[in-house]
Amino acid sequence: MGMSTATTLSPDRLFSPDPTQRGIARELYATVRDLPIVSPHGHVDPDLLADAKATLGTPAELFIIPDHYVFRMLYSQGVRLEDLGIPTRDGEPVETDHRRVWQRFAENFYLFRGTPTGLWLTDELQSVFGIREKLSGESAQKIYDQLEEKLSRPEYSPRALYKRFNIETLCTTDAATATLEQHSVLRRETWGSQIRPTFRPDAVVNLDAPNWHENIRQLGMVSQIDIVGYSSYIRALETRRTYFKQMGATATDHSALSPRTERLSDHEAGRIFDRALRGEAEAGAAERFTAHMLLEMARMSTEDGLVMQLHVGSYRNHNRNLFERFGPDKGADTPVSTEWTRNLHALLNAYGENPNYRLIVFTLDESTYGRELAPLAGHYPALLLGPPWWFFDSPAGMRRYLDSVVETAGIYNLAGFNDDTRAFASIPVRHDVWRRVTCDWLAGQMVMGIVDEADAAEMALDLAYRLAKRAYRLSDEQ
Amino acid sequence: MGMSTATTLSPDRLFSPDPTQRGIARELYATVRDLPIVSPHGHVDPDLLADAKATLGTPAELFIIPDHYVFRMLYSQGVRLEDLGIPTRDGEPVETDHRRVWQRFAENFYLFRGTPTGLWLTDELQSVFGIREKLSGESAQKIYDQLEEKLSRPEYSPRALYKRFNIETLCTTDAATATLEQHSVLRRETWGSQIRPTFRPDAVVNLDAPNWHENIRQLGMVSQIDIVGYSSYIRALETRRTYFKQMGATATDHSALSPRTERLSDHEAGRIFDRALRGEAEAGAAERFTAHMLLEMARMSTEDGLVMQLHVGSYRNHNRNLFERFGPDKGADTPVSTEWTRNLHALLNAYGENPNYRLIVFTLDESTYGRELAPLAGHYPALLLGPPWWFFDSPAGMRRYLDSVVETAGIYNLAGFNDDTRAFASIPVRHDVWRRVTCDWLAGQMVMGIVDEADAAEMALDLAYRLAKRAYRLSDEQ
Amino acid sequence: MGMSTATTLSPDRLFSPDPTQRGIARELYATVRDLPIVSPHGHVDPDLLADAKATLGTPAELFIIPDHYVFRMLYSQGVRLEDLGIPTRDGEPVETDHRRVWQRFAENFYLFRGTPTGLWLTDELQSVFGIREKLSGESAQKIYDQLEEKLSRPEYSPRALYKRFNIETLCTTDAATATLEQHSVLRRETWGSQIRPTFRPDAVVNLDAPNWHENIRQLGMVSQIDIVGYSSYIRALETRRTYFKQMGATATDHSALSPRTERLSDHEAGRIFDRALRGEAEAGAAERFTAHMLLEMARMSTEDGLVMQLHVGSYRNHNRNLFERFGPDKGADTPVSTEWTRNLHALLNAYGENPNYRLIVFTLDESTYGRELAPLAGHYPALLLGPPWWFFDSPAGMRRYLDSVVETAGIYNLAGFNDDTRAFASIPVRHDVWRRVTCDWLAGQMVMGIVDEADAAEMALDLAYRLAKRAYRLSDEQ
Repeated sequence: MGMSTATTLSPDRLFSPDPTQRGIARELYATVRDLPIVSPHGHVDPDLLADAKATLGTPAELFIIPDHYVFRMLYSQGVRLEDLGIPTRDGEPVETDHRRVWQRFAENFYLFRGTPTGLWLTDELQSVFGIREKLSGESAQKIYDQLEEKLSRPEYSPRALYKRFNIETLCTTDAATATLEQHSVLRRETWGSQIRPTFRPDAVVNLDAPNWHENIRQLGMVSQIDIVGYSSYIRALETRRTYFKQMGATATDHSALSPRTERLSDHEAGRIFDRALRGEAEAGAAERFTAHMLLEMARMSTEDGLVMQLHVGSYRNHNRNLFERFGPDKGADTPVSTEWTRNLHALLNAYGENPNYRLIVFTLDESTYGRELAPLAGHYPALLLGPPWWFFDSPAGMRRYLDSVVETAGIYNLAGFNDDTRAFASIPVRHDVWRRVTCDWLAGQMVMGIVDEADAAEMALDLAYRLAKRAYRLSDEQ
Repeated sequence: MGMSTATTLSPDRLFSPDPTQRGIARELYATVRDLPIVSPHGHVDPDLLADAKATLGTPAELFIIPDHYVFRMLYSQGVRLEDLGIPTRDGEPVETDHRRVWQRFAENFYLFRGTPTGLWLTDELQSVFGIREKLSGESAQKIYDQLEEKLSRPEYSPRALYKRFNIETLCTTDAATATLEQHSVLRRETWGSQIRPTFRPDAVVNLDAPNWHENIRQLGMVSQIDIVGYSSYIRALETRRTYFKQMGATATDHSALSPRTERLSDHEAGRIFDRALRGEAEAGAAERFTAHMLLEMARMSTEDGLVMQLHVGSYRNHNRNLFERFGPDKGADTPVSTEWTRNLHALLNAYGENPNYRLIVFTLDESTYGRELAPLAGHYPALLLGPPWWFFDSPAGMRRYLDSVVETAGIYNLAGFNDDTRAFASIPVRHDVWRRVTCDWLAGQMVMGIVDEADAAEMALDLAYRLAKRAYRLSDEQ
Repeated sequence: MGMSTATTLSPDRLFSPDPTQRGIARELYATVRDLPIVSPHGHVDPDLLADAKATLGTPAELFIIPDHYVFRMLYSQGVRLEDLGIPTRDGEPVETDHRRVWQRFAENFYLFRGTPTGLWLTDELQSVFGIREKLSGESAQKIYDQLEEKLSRPEYSPRALYKRFNIETLCTTDAATATLEQHSVLRRETWGSQIRPTFRPDAVVNLDAPNWHENIRQLGMVSQIDIVGYSSYIRALETRRTYFKQMGATATDHSALSPRTERLSDHEAGRIFDRALRGEAEAGAAERFTAHMLLEMARMSTEDGLVMQLHVGSYRNHNRNLFERFGPDKGADTPVSTEWTRNLHALLNAYGENPNYRLIVFTLDESTYGRELAPLAGHYPALLLGPPWWFFDSPAGMRRYLDSVVETAGIYNLAGFNDDTRAFASIPVRHDVWRRVTCDWLAGQMVMGIVDEADAAEMALDLAYRLAKRAYRLSDEQ
């Protein structure tokens, strides 16, 4: 049967079946489809672009091995990570034949029916690589051949794809201790303001981070500040922020299980830090120190103007066996319910009105969209609400987000779209899903008489492009 | 471009784009559009109607200065409340030129795209004031002129509008210590049973309310009972309830951060009250006393038949700076997650089967609609579920509400619609949104074969009009 | 008016109004409508089928008296349970005239407008009993006559209906102490593998269960093991599981207020059990013991391969008065919010990768679908997500479920459908709702370009039939 072996993505995909709404969605989408991509938060390896000779690797290296969105689904149905070529921590051998990895993936590709990952992969195969045959156990090796051939060509190098994807800005995420050598290289070439680092200090801020002492030692080294106590620690962080800013950063990023914020006295913060430095654990100290440091980071943002991102609510590495064998980011991170109203009270009361401060928050608890985050973003000048994140970066996730937040916060308290991906070649298809869904949602608003044509046209541009630039202070005027 | 300067609200607004569903929605809506308005809960100032010479003020006084739904959005984008003419607590001067206030509002009116506030304002300008030009920085002064001219006419007096709006009953919300002079005036005229007070005792029940001692003193004064302890306090409250009932009240209203209910012994309640009277704070006492008083108020309702309303889950005055400068109700109230099943256990076990008792609950935590409130309302005879409240009094909020509660509770355990507004001139447009959305939702149920035509017709009348009358004991037969 | 006295269920009911989507839904539904019914979890009394002479009783016995979904709604509007013939615990007399019970029900049938119960009842009257007249106070006695006449015919015996309903497998739910006599009878006839018991040990596992000591005594008796301490208790449970398995069981079922799991040392578990056996209560012990026993039951499942079901989050018997008068399952059970990520940590880390283990979870907290359960099911090989349960076994509930879980977990980490009913004659209409809603949802995915035709066809069969068989290890190959 034809449908089972060839797939042609509908040009109207993700649009409402209603002819009137679909017609409007199509028109709005036509105005934003080809806009440059602004990607202000993600996890692309800067080496991919800094190294002019970098390639995307084998099809398995491109689509499977680094992508926990993909292999977690196969794992959930009993496929061992070893058999997918995921490297172990202790070097125990895993599958090295990438054609076999690809075959296992293809045989299980039906698992992705109805998922955004399935949609991205199908779209990416078709729109980036020109492959229209449906992926299955039978077609696997033929498609592997085609991909391998394409990936060897210069027009499939990351730099070539960057141009072809029409990316205007791509922000990477970098440890506070990163030397940003790749960003130096990129700045020396013509890539300067296109690829920007982001300051992510979690590993030196969370006292219970793995290797915290070593991270602090490195922080001292790269900042050339002898970290002997809390005040030199703060100075080292400030120094590093300044350096990141010089290298093009416009933002910081912070990850926490809870958004708790609490100002400690300098004395108390110093005492906790000093004991941690001496390796003396104290019950609850790490959590309190993180809550304090979120305030300190906000204080620094009011001074250097770096936009502060806060990603909250992921219980990391839920599967301990898997973590011990394979390390972090293996598809076992699971959301927990999150409280924002009380937890952000200290932070927003201290800096929420400061015109130099900007906070963008991301949640994995959709029940907080309308209950807590939209009301807070619809009040505090400093607060913007980030796009649907991770599991909710999906067509239905986006619709729930728009339906839950816009009525209370409008769209001008939103931060536009983030792709948040480490899968470089998937960037355009992810932005395309957002652009399609927002245009269809706007078409729905129009056909229901809630927004008029002129407003919908502006809003489509804002959601696709302008809000992200403004939120991350990437606009030309800044 | 035409669309950007003139707006014509679609007569089919808020109806599904599907032609079949839309056709049915239109027919159902035609049967309820012109029904009288029953407004059983809101915050209209009774002076507006008691004073035959009252006016709606300037356009800024009508649309902006008293309406935190409006100015919070401008504030969230950096507009200072001083520049919108919001009075400060200490009398520090603010903008007094209402044309400039209006201009700032109009320039930022685009912020309301896709919000119910934007829809209400547009509809109100058009259907109440006949203004079809779209509000923007350019059209601002011209529209101000038109509004100013209209507002000076007798047919735009509150009393004239009350008739024009076809309001059948309007309930105000009044402190337990209110003398209800305006209601006396209204009763002496022909307005008797149309404008009714509602007994709201929060300020004398919550021991940590601002000015609690002064409030208790006033309570003693207006009730002519010397409040020397818990039992005289209870007697004073009962006396006041009787007076409110004589003045036409059919309901009480209670606001709390949590719906905790807990019966204390009279001894314990008395001890807490006495210590509070002596100004001796006790940790946790205020919360326990409120939990107890909710039960006491329910007990009084079983005796006097006043319907008890409970609004729960708003963390008031989240922005302390703003609260100190401008006072309460400045757009910083933020919802928190709410637990109902355990918290209402004591109350519902005590009075949930009592035929004289009725409790109507309102939540700001939509996750409790289907999980807790619809199952409870679908069981306890005394319990009704109030309409979507505050941030969720919106087209999408109403659809989520209907989709979440009707399958479990049916519509006959609902309390119809409340506008809950202090913006008198917006009352008809708010009810119109509810009527449109419920008719469209019913049309959806019909076209999906879930309810038949005869049932849908009944349900449309119930949702638009009859349920509210019945819930608040406003029916002719009562 | 015609519509008010006759009802004809639309053949397209529950399908989208959009003609394109509806057309696809209709085609998909045609492929699954007549598939055999797999009912792997429910509460049908096995006597109904074991006793060849069993009947469905009077119309009131069939539709009202045993069905708390039905009488809770009448109770919520003030109808006394006594007047509906619900038996009291102490034998105080209740209405015995089933025609009067039926009349009261029919007069209040309008309360079910827009509810799944209303839809099931209407469909059941029509498709099982051929009654097309709409139920109301007027038609009540005439319909009673028709029902009574039909119910007396042999083709309306439970066994005849079982064939007519095309049920392939029906699993009952049975106490750990049940002797399974009826299942013995059924196995001796040709019903062997069609009617299967399910092992439900709550009454011997929860130390605070009513009559726990008596239950333990019975457990000892039926297992022929002298329960003198923790290890003989565990042995007795294992013995019983073996017996259930011999009698055809493929699954166990566990109900808890919270999904807390925690491994105690054998010493600690033994100490708690021994004290309970001696009647010595210990604060918090029951909860800890249940948390431990969930792990023990999972351990047993890894050994005997019985699929473990976990139903969580119902606050049982919320209305104490009613419980005291009428006992459990009287429509007062109310959901509470549920935490899964942390609570299942111990269980999933112990057994989540075990290929012999399978856990199917059911929640009454929809906010956990996308936040916790779909991410966990989309990771752990052992975990499947059960269908929408109880209040959410409804058209809108199913749509929310599919929209919330499939994007993250796919459909292959789902357990298909359960009807979970004690109302035998309603089984086909409940499965029909699921089949209609899933086909319409798939049609929506197709028309939005998310899944293609071939995939949608497979998914329709999976959701209607194959997933349930696979989840409960009912497949021929197992």
